[in-house]
Amino acid sequence: MTNIPRLFVSAPMVTGASVRLDEGQAKYLTRVMRLGTGAIVRAFDSVNGEWRCALEIAGKAVHLELLEQTRAQVALTPLQLLFAPLKKARTDFVVEKATELGVTHIQPIITEYTQTGRVRADRLTALAIEAAEQPERLDVPAVSDALALVKALDCWPLNVPLYYCDEGSEARPMSDVLSASSQKGAALLIGPEGGFSPRERKMLRALAFVTPVTLGPRILRAETAAVCALTLWQSQVGDWREPPYVPEI
Amino acid sequence: MTNIPRLFVSAPMVTGASVRLDEGQAKYLTRVMRLGTGAIVRAFDSVNGEWRCALEIAGKAVHLELLEQTRAQVALTPLQLLFAPLKKARTDFVVEKATELGVTHIQPIITEYTQTGRVRADRLTALAIEAAEQPERLDVPAVSDALALVKALDCWPLNVPLYYCDEGSEARPMSDVLSASSQKGAALLIGPEGGFSPRERKMLRALAFVTPVTLGPRILRAETAAVCALTLWQSQVGDWREPPYVPEI
Repeated sequence: MTNIPRLFVSAPMVTGASVRLDEGQAKYLTRVMRLGTGAIVRAFDSVNGEWRCALEIAGKAVHLELLEQTRAQVALTPLQLLFAPLKKARTDFVVEKATELGVTHIQPIITEYTQTGRVRADRLTALAIEAAEQPERLDVPAVSDALALVKALDCWPLNVPLYYCDEGSEARPMSDVLSASSQKGAALLIGPEGGFSPRERKMLRALAFVTPVTLGPRILRAETAAVCALTLWQSQVGDWREPPYVPEI
Repeated sequence: MTNIPRLFVSAPMVTGASVRLDEGQAKYLTRVMRLGTGAIVRAFDSVNGEWRCALEIAGKAVHLELLEQTRAQVALTPLQLLFAPLKKARTDFVVEKATELGVTHIQPIITEYTQTGRVRADRLTALAIEAAEQPERLDVPAVSDALALVKALDCWPLNVPLYYCDEGSEARPMSDVLSASSQKGAALLIGPEGGFSPRERKMLRALAFVTPVTLGPRILRAETAAVCALTLWQSQVGDWREPPYVPEI
């Protein structure tokens, strides 16, 4: 593996451009990594692939000089994760893992049994950015503000299948359901600890775009179920037949 | 879901027996859950299934009176996880998730790039017990002391396939490899951040019982790879075709 630092930058990257880093990134590269002017850094902006850049330090202003594009942008298959916010550490975990696992949109949802309604989308976006820098992703998932489950379902695009993990009623194993699906884009819905209420279950099961699925005999914690469901989707429908991306520089 | 507390007890459970709880469990039931004498508790001991019990408090001595066996013991398919210890929080995470996902044996291993050699098997066992109480498991995975990778391979039972996640060299997607396997018991090997050394890779690939596998194009953190690999194994080879177990009491 390369040890060259890799950063998400919010400014558009084009040949000859210079991108000013924010304070946190500047501090990370100069103080934590102890890099000086001329050091090589990799950067991506979610739109223009990945670039090899040279660091330029002038007092507090730290810039990246863009040298050359090393990867073209790749669009991931749309995959949305809807999840009921958990305790802080577990919510953070869901965002980090969902980002590693190639989710393109993270939507916190409020259900009847959701214990916490407080979610700061800006804080979770910062987490998602950090999590996207590690696994060689070329984009950062969008993180939305929390939304009531009913509202999310009300405006649902009917051609996008929504799989929800149901531990309480009859449902089929997720891998069986996915192997019968030819749809690419999809969404996964994970309830809070305690699952969905009987009313929510009834509502979900009445919708044509919704399919309940199971994840085995053991009752998984919500954040575990999220990772497992994303794994099965990526493995069966997503891009997990592609080899690991290993940077050349 | 039932709200009846569920505990692992290390004493054998048989009809008419009374099991004294350790201090932590006693405190949890009486002070945190605020239960009194006569309250119903569920207990399992890894050997004799699950029992419905009545709490009996006599000063500091807190016992469970065993009322009736509510589930017979079920043996899980042997599934070993070998993983290189990570930072504390991430090691804890691996143990918790591996337990939820039905691992029967957790083996910390020391590889060339492993950052930390310190692992306390007793502390990880306590974590595994706690993690086994939640998902309706009837047993607790064994946690061994750390072992050098070479030693673990030296005494390997040749009939148990060992899958290792290799991000650096040619390998096949894990789901393809598993779908071609008829073997039940297995072991999964997850390297540290930074993966395996070239020498370890060569050694692993030379062994007949070892198969390298990949988990998609993004480079996953070690603890994420562990959860993903366990998910695929349980879904394709393990018991994930069984419906979720929902307690009746």
